[in-house]
Amino acid sequence: MNAQSPRRSGGRAARRASRAAPLTQDIRPIRAGMQGGHYKPLSDQDVLRIHETALTALEQIGLIDAPQSGIDIMTSAGAILGEDGRLRFPRALVEDMLAKACKDITLCGRDTQYDLQLNGHRVHYGTAGAAVHMVDIDTNDYRDSTLQDLHDAARIAHQLDNIHFLQRPMVARDVTDNKEMDLNSIYACSSGTTKHIGVSFTDPAFVPDALEMLHMIAGGEQAWRDRPFVSNTNCFVVPPMKFATESCEVMEACIRGGMPVLLLSAGMAGATAPSTIAGAIVQATAECLAGMVYVNAIKPGHPAIFGTWPFGLDLRTGAMSVGSGEQALLSAGCAQMHKFYGLPGGAAAGASDSKLPDMQAGWEQMCSNVMAGLSGLNMVYEAAGMHASLLGFCHESLILGDDLIGQAQRCVRGIEVDDATLALEEIRSVCVGGPGHYLGTDATLSRMQKDHVYPTFGDRTSPKEWAEVGKPDLIAKAKARKEEILSTPASARFAPDLDQALRARFNIHLQP
Amino acid sequence: MNAQSPRRSGGRAARRASRAAPLTQDIRPIRAGMQGGHYKPLSDQDVLRIHETALTALEQIGLIDAPQSGIDIMTSAGAILGEDGRLRFPRALVEDMLAKACKDITLCGRDTQYDLQLNGHRVHYGTAGAAVHMVDIDTNDYRDSTLQDLHDAARIAHQLDNIHFLQRPMVARDVTDNKEMDLNSIYACSSGTTKHIGVSFTDPAFVPDALEMLHMIAGGEQAWRDRPFVSNTNCFVVPPMKFATESCEVMEACIRGGMPVLLLSAGMAGATAPSTIAGAIVQATAECLAGMVYVNAIKPGHPAIFGTWPFGLDLRTGAMSVGSGEQALLSAGCAQMHKFYGLPGGAAAGASDSKLPDMQAGWEQMCSNVMAGLSGLNMVYEAAGMHASLLGFCHESLILGDDLIGQAQRCVRGIEVDDATLALEEIRSVCVGGPGHYLGTDATLSRMQKDHVYPTFGDRTSPKEWAEVGKPDLIAKAKARKEEILSTPASARFAPDLDQALRARFNIHLQP
Repeated sequence: MNAQSPRRSGGRAARRASRAAPLTQDIRPIRAGMQGGHYKPLSDQDVLRIHETALTALEQIGLIDAPQSGIDIMTSAGAILGEDGRLRFPRALVEDMLAKACKDITLCGRDTQYDLQLNGHRVHYGTAGAAVHMVDIDTNDYRDSTLQDLHDAARIAHQLDNIHFLQRPMVARDVTDNKEMDLNSIYACSSGTTKHIGVSFTDPAFVPDALEMLHMIAGGEQAWRDRPFVSNTNCFVVPPMKFATESCEVMEACIRGGMPVLLLSAGMAGATAPSTIAGAIVQATAECLAGMVYVNAIKPGHPAIFGTWPFGLDLRTGAMSVGSGEQALLSAGCAQMHKFYGLPGGAAAGASDSKLPDMQAGWEQMCSNVMAGLSGLNMVYEAAGMHASLLGFCHESLILGDDLIGQAQRCVRGIEVDDATLALEEIRSVCVGGPGHYLGTDATLSRMQKDHVYPTFGDRTSPKEWAEVGKPDLIAKAKARKEEILSTPASARFAPDLDQALRARFNIHLQP
Repeated sequence: MNAQSPRRSGGRAARRASRAAPLTQDIRPIRAGMQGGHYKPLSDQDVLRIHETALTALEQIGLIDAPQSGIDIMTSAGAILGEDGRLRFPRALVEDMLAKACKDITLCGRDTQYDLQLNGHRVHYGTAGAAVHMVDIDTNDYRDSTLQDLHDAARIAHQLDNIHFLQRPMVARDVTDNKEMDLNSIYACSSGTTKHIGVSFTDPAFVPDALEMLHMIAGGEQAWRDRPFVSNTNCFVVPPMKFATESCEVMEACIRGGMPVLLLSAGMAGATAPSTIAGAIVQATAECLAGMVYVNAIKPGHPAIFGTWPFGLDLRTGAMSVGSGEQALLSAGCAQMHKFYGLPGGAAAGASDSKLPDMQAGWEQMCSNVMAGLSGLNMVYEAAGMHASLLGFCHESLILGDDLIGQAQRCVRGIEVDDATLALEEIRSVCVGGPGHYLGTDATLSRMQKDHVYPTFGDRTSPKEWAEVGKPDLIAKAKARKEEILSTPASARFAPDLDQALRARFNIHLQP
């Protein structure tokens, strides 16, 4: 067809300005927690076969390397320790624990408006870790990431409507002491955003101090336990089928401290997990089921996110690859398993293998992000800002990711079908004795804001308009926005007395 | 999680080289015509309501402006011409014609290896029209598109595995005579690729000469009619609910000449179609059902593609928008309607509003391309190279689109679940007394090529490797590939005697 867009000339600038005002939350066309689930990569029978195979793997193969505390906890619940040191899980035990597991998790923000409700096919997008580099978009250099970068990412994420949580996206490499790094990461994230935060701990011994910091921020232990706004991203397994001994001890400490946990199984298909998509999902499912038994044997119903995070691999090189179609299928398939169990779940999507926020990054980030959303994944981790197969984080890309995720969310929202949207009477009145077009009809105008998602940085001008405004560069626009955000005081920053108390008690590396 | 990719050092270059050889067609992991359909944006009830509403619109509102020949054809079949000039279609007529319509279309290539089989949820990706500008990626300028640009696009598309057909992507603006433009467009496309081609005609009077040219290329009328390798992209309606009088006459001539037709209804939601997604689908469905009655009243079972192509609109500006989430939903919803009718269908996906092949272009192109594929759209038009809301075409973007579509196709292929892919025994042998990883296992190596799609231009190197090879730029790589393709003789070019005969008979503007 010939592109003859109905561009109108009169008053466009005024119209555009009047419509560019931010929408209030209640009429925004998209929001955190919309229901996906229209995309099902697996048939019902496929899901059952994956489930059965995972149960068989748990019963016959089991997992090795649980800490003694975990062995005690899980054997008391009914797991069987073999002479080969592997802990095996009878089906009945798994099924009993599934019945006890938390099916509806509230992930609290420090501000209640950012609470996330994890159940059904409700979809949320956020960052995750853990890059070790920052991408400098001025020089295309990769440099070590710092605590300030982490804090800045938190501040930026706080301003982006479509970033619903902040799992620590990068490692503060300038804080060389592991304990201080863990504590400062909490500080840098929490003082940058009041959205829900995810962090990890290097050592179980660091958890008590972390909890003390969180109690101070929350206003006491009970306030923290009532609304834990930080969860523990816990790599409790080292695939294939091995518990990560120290991480398990961290997990036990976090559960006792009232912190939600993300049971993260991050196998790489072809390296630490089977090379097939189905096989990688089987293994991740088995590992997370073992974690679910572990958690519920400690504290029935403790909030734990079923974190099947299988990653892809470029089998030509043995290098990790997160931007592929295989990756998108891995995460969407996992989402279906979560729904089968009725457990809140998460997986990785939206990361790119590209080193820069270029066209490749765009197509890779969208592919897995939109498929994760359509499959109804509750927590889409790594959804924005992540490059170089998780090695590099980019603030400008995070900002552009907000546009990209907004579009994915529009797709998740889907197609409303009712008498009004079917529009028979509107078609009739326009065509029969009407104006012959729908521009400016009441129906059209009323849907302009509440049904349509407009990109903030994505450009929709005509080539002529675009040239007139100087051919604006996407990355430059994102950079300007970053500088704007970071030049204003962080709205999430701690009250002065709390900040003073935290700095008195802990060695905070971030400048006040 | 911390990104610790299992990068191995020894012999990688050799391994990579040995694995970089092109795959033979039989073991390629993706191919034209893979089955989608795992994504269903509409419930069964939604589909029925859209169908019912479209039938009601046809029965009560009908279409105006059919040519007299069309009125005669359709009223003879049972349509009713009202005093208001609108042609209305009783339900029984639509249902009768649905029964007669062609359900399985072979779109022929000039070379049989490129034949496309349109049925079920089989998915094919290709270009479509019609841009009036070319994007110059060196200067970021938009300039008028030429016949040579069109020929070059055909030559490039011919070399790209994941571009399955070439619908004329741009207008040859340097050929100012409309008839010569139409004839030269056929010449420029057909001499550039032996894949299936789609073209349009400005005037019904041009069709006889076009058929004469096609007979010559095919080697006679019967050879042409046996394997018509060009179809007519026919904008037979001017939405809302109006026949495009001249295009209808073109269609009649093409059908009689044995040319498959694409019944293209390109309404813009909010301007020439209702602003709601459901309403735009209703109207496009009604219009294409009218076209389907028209075609089958002329020649029952003539191959006609159900071309519901609703486009989006930026309601803030009134400008066309093709890169949005709304667009992706429009096309995916249409795919479901095609399947409901059992008719081969097509819609637009993969076009971008961005002026350049940048990150925005990547996310926009992937969003609708992958959703179209997952929904099982038979013909995904506008899938590569298209920018500026259909106003600009970019050869380098077309080349990168091949990577992008390859990834989308991998997603369409989906997740295979069987005993081998579930990998229970492989997990057992790796974990219990085995090496503890899957690198280099027989199962892993055997799946390296046949299951995984590797990008040609998408970069998966580590930041260190990337820096070592000079931080290659995605667009520069695509440009080099373009120059490589265009510097070698077109493999699809006509035999010298045929070319001479065509040039003797027609005024061919393309230099030999």
